[in-house]
Amino acid sequence: MSGNTAFKQCTAEVFGTFWLVLAGCGSAVLAGSDIGYLGVALAFGLSVLTMAFAIGHISGCHLNPAVTLGLWVGGRFPGRQLLPYVIAQLIGGIAAATVLYFIADAKPGFDLAASGFAANGYAEHSPAGYSMAGAFLTEVVMTMMFIVVILGATSTRAPKGFAPIAIGLALALIHMISIPVTNTSVNPARSTAVALFAGDWAIAQLWLFWLAPLLGAVLGAGIYRMIGSKQDG
Amino acid sequence: MSGNTAFKQCTAEVFGTFWLVLAGCGSAVLAGSDIGYLGVALAFGLSVLTMAFAIGHISGCHLNPAVTLGLWVGGRFPGRQLLPYVIAQLIGGIAAATVLYFIADAKPGFDLAASGFAANGYAEHSPAGYSMAGAFLTEVVMTMMFIVVILGATSTRAPKGFAPIAIGLALALIHMISIPVTNTSVNPARSTAVALFAGDWAIAQLWLFWLAPLLGAVLGAGIYRMIGSKQDG
Amino acid sequence: MSGNTAFKQCTAEVFGTFWLVLAGCGSAVLAGSDIGYLGVALAFGLSVLTMAFAIGHISGCHLNPAVTLGLWVGGRFPGRQLLPYVIAQLIGGIAAATVLYFIADAKPGFDLAASGFAANGYAEHSPAGYSMAGAFLTEVVMTMMFIVVILGATSTRAPKGFAPIAIGLALALIHMISIPVTNTSVNPARSTAVALFAGDWAIAQLWLFWLAPLLGAVLGAGIYRMIGSKQDG
Amino acid sequence: MSGNTAFKQCTAEVFGTFWLVLAGCGSAVLAGSDIGYLGVALAFGLSVLTMAFAIGHISGCHLNPAVTLGLWVGGRFPGRQLLPYVIAQLIGGIAAATVLYFIADAKPGFDLAASGFAANGYAEHSPAGYSMAGAFLTEVVMTMMFIVVILGATSTRAPKGFAPIAIGLALALIHMISIPVTNTSVNPARSTAVALFAGDWAIAQLWLFWLAPLLGAVLGAGIYRMIGSKQDG
Repeated sequence: MSGNTAFKQCTAEVFGTFWLVLAGCGSAVLAGSDIGYLGVALAFGLSVLTMAFAIGHISGCHLNPAVTLGLWVGGRFPGRQLLPYVIAQLIGGIAAATVLYFIADAKPGFDLAASGFAANGYAEHSPAGYSMAGAFLTEVVMTMMFIVVILGATSTRAPKGFAPIAIGLALALIHMISIPVTNTSVNPARSTAVALFAGDWAIAQLWLFWLAPLLGAVLGAGIYRMIGSKQDG
Repeated sequence: MSGNTAFKQCTAEVFGTFWLVLAGCGSAVLAGSDIGYLGVALAFGLSVLTMAFAIGHISGCHLNPAVTLGLWVGGRFPGRQLLPYVIAQLIGGIAAATVLYFIADAKPGFDLAASGFAANGYAEHSPAGYSMAGAFLTEVVMTMMFIVVILGATSTRAPKGFAPIAIGLALALIHMISIPVTNTSVNPARSTAVALFAGDWAIAQLWLFWLAPLLGAVLGAGIYRMIGSKQDG
Repeated sequence: MSGNTAFKQCTAEVFGTFWLVLAGCGSAVLAGSDIGYLGVALAFGLSVLTMAFAIGHISGCHLNPAVTLGLWVGGRFPGRQLLPYVIAQLIGGIAAATVLYFIADAKPGFDLAASGFAANGYAEHSPAGYSMAGAFLTEVVMTMMFIVVILGATSTRAPKGFAPIAIGLALALIHMISIPVTNTSVNPARSTAVALFAGDWAIAQLWLFWLAPLLGAVLGAGIYRMIGSKQDG
Repeated sequence: MSGNTAFKQCTAEVFGTFWLVLAGCGSAVLAGSDIGYLGVALAFGLSVLTMAFAIGHISGCHLNPAVTLGLWVGGRFPGRQLLPYVIAQLIGGIAAATVLYFIADAKPGFDLAASGFAANGYAEHSPAGYSMAGAFLTEVVMTMMFIVVILGATSTRAPKGFAPIAIGLALALIHMISIPVTNTSVNPARSTAVALFAGDWAIAQLWLFWLAPLLGAVLGAGIYRMIGSKQDG
């Protein structure tokens, strides 16, 4: 693979993660009181579905360090690209949070701290007050099953072309279940991007939204190894 | 088929049914008051849609004893695998209900009995008070049409690759209609898994959520035999 | 075509229309106050999407006399099958309304007349009070565009296999727009089936829900003739 | 390309844009208080999804001057057809707004000015009071990402046949985020069509809903040039 290809891939991850954070967190910050948790869940899912059709053929459309790790553990992604992908995802996510901040601030009376800025949290910062242990378990299990769906739907034996639908709707589904628990991360880049704006508590709790999704990704890759066949590409 | 393949298939059914119960019942227990019946209906449907893309090529992604029975009656599944599949589905469902219990209990003030834990019921335990006869009729007819969609959409003459969309959205649709009647089962494994946690009344009424879906599955296979052609694979 | 094939086709139309009316009108009658107009709109759409994958390869999955007429005018359906298809659609729809009545009546306090039974109406029987002229215009234009989508999406030049998605979601969309106007018909079989139960006023207004959709279907076929190519199959 | 083909293409754009405005703006005007912003967002998205399956093979289904411009800048569309396409889109949009006016006016007490007629606006005419700068930024970024999705999903390397799903759901997603900001345009033809009916303020603010989407389209084409390969068709 040429350096040019690697550059295009990382640039695609930048813009893809930009879209995930702008659309997912943006729908929550700008329209959450109108469209509800179901609308926000669909927004996160559709951000991935749409981008996976647009750039899946360029970079694989990970948009998420946990996905990149899971694909590497699952034998579908080369280790030397791990770090560039994760950096690209963080850049894209932070750029989106910045744009979102400027848009949100264009509404008279916008209060960044009061909005929460779609940050993830547990205990007193869980939307419905779920404990740290419950939040950790939720993020591990949700990411684990997300990786199972990703590895399965992108298997060479799965129907061709449909993976963006399966993966995007899996992310929507994960949000339908778990927004009340942690505001749903399963994606350390998404959590980091908005935590930088949401401030103190969000940064203090950020460790969980790296550790749990990454652990879940490894478990998910392990599960798929049990059920998938060796021929899967 | 090797023993290894059979093991992978049953393991896939375990994790697939785990996802159906965790996502479907989980969305109801954790987020039901936020996303409403429409959101819960979509969650059940998307759990099957996503898993069918992920493991359909491994096990067929039944996730449901009534589906396994219907496919056997419809001539699409070997009888000797009936029991292993149903056992795998029960294991996966019960594991999911266990994980869901730990997550739900991480919210201060969670009351298992008051929550209902997404169990299925009729008469005084029907969400809107539907009688036992109405609940029975509903579960039979809904499962019957579910099996017609499954057999038709997986026919060799149907468009290739789309069956997970048709089948997943059929399950979502069934919930959109019938949550008020029985909380919607059409799946004895799903009903059993949460009844073990919801307790007395749910176990006392569990017979209906085995009998009616299994009867519906047989009727659905009979209907498809009338309209499908012999060449259908 | 053998008589056996024609029998299978008509039987498929019976069960398909059964599903459209049971799922669409059923979601409105049983769960409408829970899932809202958006949920009912999706239910109608998903009934067609799921059935089109299941029986599209058998009968074409019309489920609607206006669709059958539009396909005939558009040169895609043989005239001698018009009447058998329409009769099959009416049988399926009426059977569904009967089953729906028994389910709905299993809820204590169900009042058939007060429920409206998802019947279509105008003026004082329009959900939001739209006049007869507005209702007529709406049903004509909605059916017209429905037929354009059907003829286009089933063209030999359109992507293969996706027509059920396009057509099902078009029906959902039509309901998202027009439930407040007429409760949305665009389908004389659906209107007739529930009017027989809803009673006096619904039968008195039924003429509009035959005339306007059939007129719209002819116009839609005419529009597609302008934009489609002769080679379309 | 023969003149006949060009005529069919422009006629397809007329009817396609007719459907986008009738369905999208129609759902807002007729059913917005029932289906909410989420329902309206889905309606806009499904209007494009359904039409793209129906006429994508005829005209490419732009339905939007910003899309036509973006495809031209992206090297996918011949410049000499720019003007005919935009004129066709305006004709279709205005025709739809006219039909919508007649339907809306069939409800007793309909007040055109009070309804807003789904027009786009900023500052005091933004649904949630967003400033002109915030509205401009939002329309630029949303259109930019819309064009990235369109160019990517219609690339020769993307999965075949799925572009209508990606593009339609991208438009739905854009509305889920930005209805509170500008009522969401990203489409000058849609904005113009309803502004002619909504009146003074809508026409006075119309410049933004031409300038920002067109600028966003050019930026989106530039981004895709960075990440796509030269072989993309």
